[in-house]
Parts: sequence; structure tokens; C-alpha cells
Amino acid sequence: MTVASTVKRIGISIGDPAGIGPELALRAAARIDDFPDVKLVLVGDAALLGRVASLVGLPMPPVITARDWDDSRRGEDPHRGRVTVVSTGDLSSDSVVGGQWTKETGAASYHWVCFAAKATLAGQLDAMVTGPIQKEAWHAAGIEYPGHTELLADLTASSRVRMMLTSDEISCVLATVHIPLADVASRLTSDDVFEAIQLGAIALEKKCQRKFNAAPRVTVCGLNPHAGEHGLMSYKEEELVIQPAIRRAQAMGIDVTGPLSPDTAFVPARRRMTDVYVCMYHDQGLIPLKALAFDDAVNVTLGLPIVRTSVDHGTAMDIAWSGKASESSLLAALRMASELI
Amino acid sequence: MTVASTVKRIGISIGDPAGIGPELALRAAARIDDFPDVKLVLVGDAALLGRVASLVGLPMPPVITARDWDDSRRGEDPHRGRVTVVSTGDLSSDSVVGGQWTKETGAASYHWVCFAAKATLAGQLDAMVTGPIQKEAWHAAGIEYPGHTELLADLTASSRVRMMLTSDEISCVLATVHIPLADVASRLTSDDVFEAIQLGAIALEKKCQRKFNAAPRVTVCGLNPHAGEHGLMSYKEEELVIQPAIRRAQAMGIDVTGPLSPDTAFVPARRRMTDVYVCMYHDQGLIPLKALAFDDAVNVTLGLPIVRTSVDHGTAMDIAWSGKASESSLLAALRMASELI
Repeated sequence: MTVASTVKRIGISIGDPAGIGPELALRAAARIDDFPDVKLVLVGDAALLGRVASLVGLPMPPVITARDWDDSRRGEDPHRGRVTVVSTGDLSSDSVVGGQWTKETGAASYHWVCFAAKATLAGQLDAMVTGPIQKEAWHAAGIEYPGHTELLADLTASSRVRMMLTSDEISCVLATVHIPLADVASRLTSDDVFEAIQLGAIALEKKCQRKFNAAPRVTVCGLNPHAGEHGLMSYKEEELVIQPAIRRAQAMGIDVTGPLSPDTAFVPARRRMTDVYVCMYHDQGLIPLKALAFDDAVNVTLGLPIVRTSVDHGTAMDIAWSGKASESSLLAALRMASELI
Repeated sequence: MTVASTVKRIGISIGDPAGIGPELALRAAARIDDFPDVKLVLVGDAALLGRVASLVGLPMPPVITARDWDDSRRGEDPHRGRVTVVSTGDLSSDSVVGGQWTKETGAASYHWVCFAAKATLAGQLDAMVTGPIQKEAWHAAGIEYPGHTELLADLTASSRVRMMLTSDEISCVLATVHIPLADVASRLTSDDVFEAIQLGAIALEKKCQRKFNAAPRVTVCGLNPHAGEHGLMSYKEEELVIQPAIRRAQAMGIDVTGPLSPDTAFVPARRRMTDVYVCMYHDQGLIPLKALAFDDAVNVTLGLPIVRTSVDHGTAMDIAWSGKASESSLLAALRMASELI
């Protein structure tokens, strides 16, 4: 590679082609000057991006094929300027209608995530940012992963990954993610909670040392209303599952408190005492995060050997290809990836 | 009664005597001038309130016995000025230690709620505000109600009651309340959701007509992450339980939308389009409410024949009797009760 080492090469998998992902990727590309040390690679389909670019009035970056990209392993710089589109050949663009996902759009978005992950693992990229996929389209295409996090764990042979959502206001690591609410209590294990505490503390370590010269303070939420009140409104998951994980983390020297009543865990006074929350289920963390964070929340996968961040929103099929999508979450994800490299 | 009809007579059950409830009731009493049209009745124990008053340096209001209070039914005004303490004789004050609930403190706080509810039903009070109880103390005293809401439903023979939490920022009606998270999905019924929608719309009707000259806009949350994505991460509770309730409410002319992905339901743009949320479980509503509302959230029981509001916090045993408790939630509950009369 002839790329200078101070340049950060960040790939964006553009997400489901029928959603807002392609427009967001083009918007981020158009703002490349906000990221002076970044080279951006949009992983997707050139014809599709070209259609969206002309529809919404955005410039189309230069394109290379997947083969050109692979040739770069032999020493050629594949980048065509500050932004390059890698067209992988996984989509027949003509068949895609904006706002209408299909099994074909699901399969294409899946391949783009795999492509970006492999390039990052191989060192051709320094980090990857994922655009929004349509999980039902993956399912229709026969792809059984419930989301990016689980796919990336498999692709990188990582057994202990956790999803962290982070914003200026709060950061949350999730002990369980994309499962029915009915299954949360029965599937939650003490290992899940411990790993979330540990990965959260590791993720915030550098930032807290730099900002406060202190270790991160982890706050663990209970599972039940009022943290169960000792079995009055629980099956004692707080005592049997969560507390052992907290004690195990404390024994390792992690600064961790809980389990707190979930509804008081996010009041302003407690937020000021917390660097990272550990939440038992998806909405316990994402509801307060999005209520407080406006548009700047970023999804970071902890426990991977590569840097991966993501937008915190979905495909917004209802406004796809219309020029109405806001790129603020994608830009926040880019900034975060750049910080983490 | 000789009390002028413009005066609003509001009772406060002082909550668990070992908690912060007694101090809060005394603080509210000391600020009676903030409520020029209210006569306040503290329902509790005179000796206990006297002990707390001298400990934290607050004035002790005049006292009458439960018998004096009952005599008022025969035409005598029981009020001794703007604030009166009714001492019911249900507690042996000497045995109570601040911060340490017992089955005796549980039993006393239970009797005070019953006393206030009966007085309100009988028209001796125009509304009741409840201080924080310790649910475990109720349980230790053999009282099986999981909370105020369920007790008041029984005391007033009301079959369709719902808990609403309200603040300047958002209002939430809960479809299920004080049950383990593991049981939420299996216990949630379409009737629960429908009644929450209907009672929420009724509760906000007057305010929305006055403020916007329009009917309240109800937003219903899904149960599962991303509202289940049509069964990908759900047992289709959104389709089988929640949507039928929404259609039933729409058929009655209620302006109701949903089920929304819970994590995006509380973002600022959606909050501006919502007058009242219907939440499937306790923390789905209380987490965003308390994250956004600071100290001013109030608990209102909908569906009762009496006006009842409550503080939105617990007994805070760790700071009981110390002078450190903030009365802002109790004052907000008083204001709300006064508005609802």
C-alpha cells in the first residue's frame, strides 16, 4: 500500500439498497472535507449508487470493481481520490425499487457487510461503518443472522461480542440484543452480564483516563420493575443472575454499581455518576439513549478484532431515495470509528 | 361541611413512616401558601410526625384524631386551619426507627391509604395524594397488593384502572405494571392495551381541547425490539395483541398510532406528535419519563371514581428523617390533584 499511515481508511457498507443507506453514504462522501485524515470507501453497487445520486442531486464518486480492489493487495493503491466506490457485483440494480426491500436487496446488503469485514480483517481498511440493513430482507434471503453484531462475531471468530450504543449523553452496553421480550429473562445469563460489564469498562477505559484520569464507572440496571424488590416482582434474576456478575467484575477491580431500579438509573443525577450503563435488554438501553441523544447515537460492536461502528437507525423505507434522510448518525458513526482506530 | 365549595380538600397519606414520606408531607404542609385554594390533611400518626418534624426542623401542624374526623360527618368542620394532621391510631410511633421498615410500618402505611381513600369516596376529601410506601413492608405485613393502584381499584370497586405517569415532558399509561419482566409478554392482553389507550385518551381530553382545541394523540409502543419486525424478534404480540387493540380504539374515533418501535417512540420528533404514550410494561414508560422529567413526574390512577395522584419515587430509606429529601415530586402531585378535581 502506498497510502500514508496517518490516513485512516474507513469502509461504509451502504446497507439495504432500497432504504436510505445509499443516500446517506453519498451524503457522507460529499462531506469528506469534514474528515481531513480519512479516505472513504463505499462498499455497494455503482449503478445503484448512480441512480440514487442523480435522484437526490448528489455527486457520484469514482468507482472501482471488486477485482481492482483485490489487485490492491499486490501493492497498488486502489483509492481513486478521497472517496472510492467499490462495486462488488452482488446486485442487479435495475430491479431495485426505492422503498421496497426484497430478498435480492437483503442478499446484496449481506454481501457488502461481509466484503467490508473481510477487507478490514485483511488490513485493507482500518475500520468499517455499517449502513442500515433490513433484517426481514436478510431473513427472506435465507440469512439467519438477526443483525450485524452476530454476523460480525462469526466472520471474525469472536465469541464475546457486545453491542454498545454511545452518544454524548450516555453509553449503554446490552447484555441481550435482538430477541423477543418474552425470552429475555430466561435467556439472560450471568456470563452475559459479566461480559457486558467487562467489555463496557474496557471500551471506556482510554476515554475516562484521558478525561478524568480515572477508571470508568459502570452502572448495571436490574431486569425487573424496581429491580424486583427482592422477589416481590421478579424471579430473583437480580440476586441470582446479575449480582454474581457484578461481584465477579468487582473482584477484578472494575468500578461497578448495581443492580439499580431501571427507571431511576437514567435520571440526571445518576447519569453524572455513570460512564457506561449495562442494560439487560435492547429497549432498556435504547429507549433512554435515543430519548436523550437526538441524532448523534452510534452503535459500536465491542469484542471484535476490528473497529466497527454503525448508524443507530433503520432503513426508513418510507423516505428512501427522496433526499429527506439525515446523515447525522452516519457522520457520528464515522467520527467514532475514526476515534477508535 | 362548612367548608366553602371553592376550597379543595386534599388528603396526603404519608407513606411508610420509616421512609422519607413523613418529611415530605411536612415539607408540603410548610408550603401550603403555594396552594391558596387547598386545605391539606396529612393522614398518618401524630407522634411519628412530631418526631420527624423536630428532627428535620419543620413546623408540626395541628392534630385531630380519627374519631374527631369521623365526627365531621355530623356537620362539624374538622379542619384546624389550612393544614390538619389526622392521627389514625394505627402505629406505635416509639418502635419506629428512621430508615428501617418493618411489618408494623407496612401495616400502618396500608391503613393510611385505606383511610384516605374512604374519606375521598365519602366526600370528606376532594382528592388524595399518596406518599411512598415500602412494598416489601406491605408484603411482610401480609398485605398482598403489589401497590397503591391495585389496592385503590379494590377499595373503590373499579375494574378498569391504569397507572399514568405524567410530567411536563411526556405522559405514559401502562398496560401492565408491577409484574416480573418474564411475565409481561404472557400476561399482556388486548384488553389491557385497549383500556390503556381509552383511559389515556380520556385523561388527556380536557387538557388537549383547552390547549390545542383537538383530541389527544395517543402513541402506542410495541412490546419487542424494533416492534418485533413481524415475528423476527417477537412472538407476534404486536400483530396478535397490540394491533387489534389499536383498531378497536380507532373504530371508537380515538386518534391513536402504533405499535411503534419502542426505542424510536420517545425521540424528540415523535414526542412533539404525542400527547400520551401507551406503554406495554413498567420500565418502557418509566425509564424515558424519569430520564426526561427530572423531579416533576406524577403518578395518576386512571379509571377510579376518585382523584388520586402520587409521588413517582420510593421511600429512599437511606436518607429517611435526615432533612435531605426533596418535596418537588409531592408538590407536583399536589398541583396535579388540584387540577384534576
